[in-house]
Amino acid sequence: MKIIKVRSKAREEMIDITREVEKLLPEKGEGVCVLFVQHTTCGLTINENADPDVKKDMLLFLRKTIPQFFEGFQHFEHNSDAHIKSSLVGSNITVPFQNGKLMLGRWQAVFLCEFDGARERTILMQTLISNSD
Amino acid sequence: MKIIKVRSKAREEMIDITREVEKLLPEKGEGVCVLFVQHTTCGLTINENADPDVKKDMLLFLRKTIPQFFEGFQHFEHNSDAHIKSSLVGSNITVPFQNGKLMLGRWQAVFLCEFDGARERTILMQTLISNSD
Amino acid sequence: MKIIKVRSKAREEMIDITREVEKLLPEKGEGVCVLFVQHTTCGLTINENADPDVKKDMLLFLRKTIPQFFEGFQHFEHNSDAHIKSSLVGSNITVPFQNGKLMLGRWQAVFLCEFDGARERTILMQTLISNSD
Repeated sequence: MKIIKVRSKAREEMIDITREVEKLLPEKGEGVCVLFVQHTTCGLTINENADPDVKKDMLLFLRKTIPQFFEGFQHFEHNSDAHIKSSLVGSNITVPFQNGKLMLGRWQAVFLCEFDGARERTILMQTLISNSD
Repeated sequence: MKIIKVRSKAREEMIDITREVEKLLPEKGEGVCVLFVQHTTCGLTINENADPDVKKDMLLFLRKTIPQFFEGFQHFEHNSDAHIKSSLVGSNITVPFQNGKLMLGRWQAVFLCEFDGARERTILMQTLISNSD
Repeated sequence: MKIIKVRSKAREEMIDITREVEKLLPEKGEGVCVLFVQHTTCGLTINENADPDVKKDMLLFLRKTIPQFFEGFQHFEHNSDAHIKSSLVGSNITVPFQNGKLMLGRWQAVFLCEFDGARERTILMQTLISNSD
């Protein structure tokens, strides 16, 4: 089990953690890398890291569609929007790897999605070596 | 392959299944636990189990934003909302474990998200032991 | 690591790839099958393949709720909607299998969700044999 720590700087932010993950991959062999964030108000996703407007548009859309002060919300911490975004984006991803590299497509990167920062976040990483052929 | 059966009591409900999962984990070793629900109108997620208002706010938001009778829906069973929620929340999660415990954060629990109950639901559980270091 | 290629025919489409996946599963043994799509404007999900109206209703809802031209979107390719749908539906799924078959429920199938087609899409597949009992 390996641990990645990430510090966010805003309430809502997408932080590229691809390099931090790849540093911890085994140099040889292939399998899958499981990433799991131990929090209920952020998430993990894979998306484009080329044009930063993709991240901006995604956070804008989520903020407008899942507003912090939605009529009827009762949770006393006033961050139900962040909990909902966390469950929709998801708190875990599983990505194939080979010889120290995630098998990402040309435009893909791994992002921590912060929805209730700024905070330090903890991501667990477990690699499973393929044993099937 | 292990099986967890859960009975929901309402059309929409989030049911904490953390204990049922941990009962079936191996007592020693570490790896990942894969959970998979064999239905198309419910989901699995990880979120907060401390303040019950988090669950209420999440179900309220999903019900208002993904209404059962959305203009244009044609599926004859009138539960397209539940199918959509299932795909957005997701039908599978993968969580690291160690010595009989899921490696959850302080506020995290594993939930079955019922979107078209009340019904009995079947969850498959597969554990994979880490072999990578 | 195995590869599945899928060609979509429309901007938005759900394509059943269950058979293509099962053809590549090992004939004996049990474990989990990890599927990962190497693109940022499509996704992978599990949902119903019996009534085709389920797919139509899902794509209709996503198109109306996450419009291509949402006020404030800045990404120059004008496909931020597809990036957002990709992160909400997710780019990876993990499904238990046994003796050459995915352990799907009665109504479940595996779908590639195209949100910015028509294009050829690449899905990576990695199987992990269970070693835990």
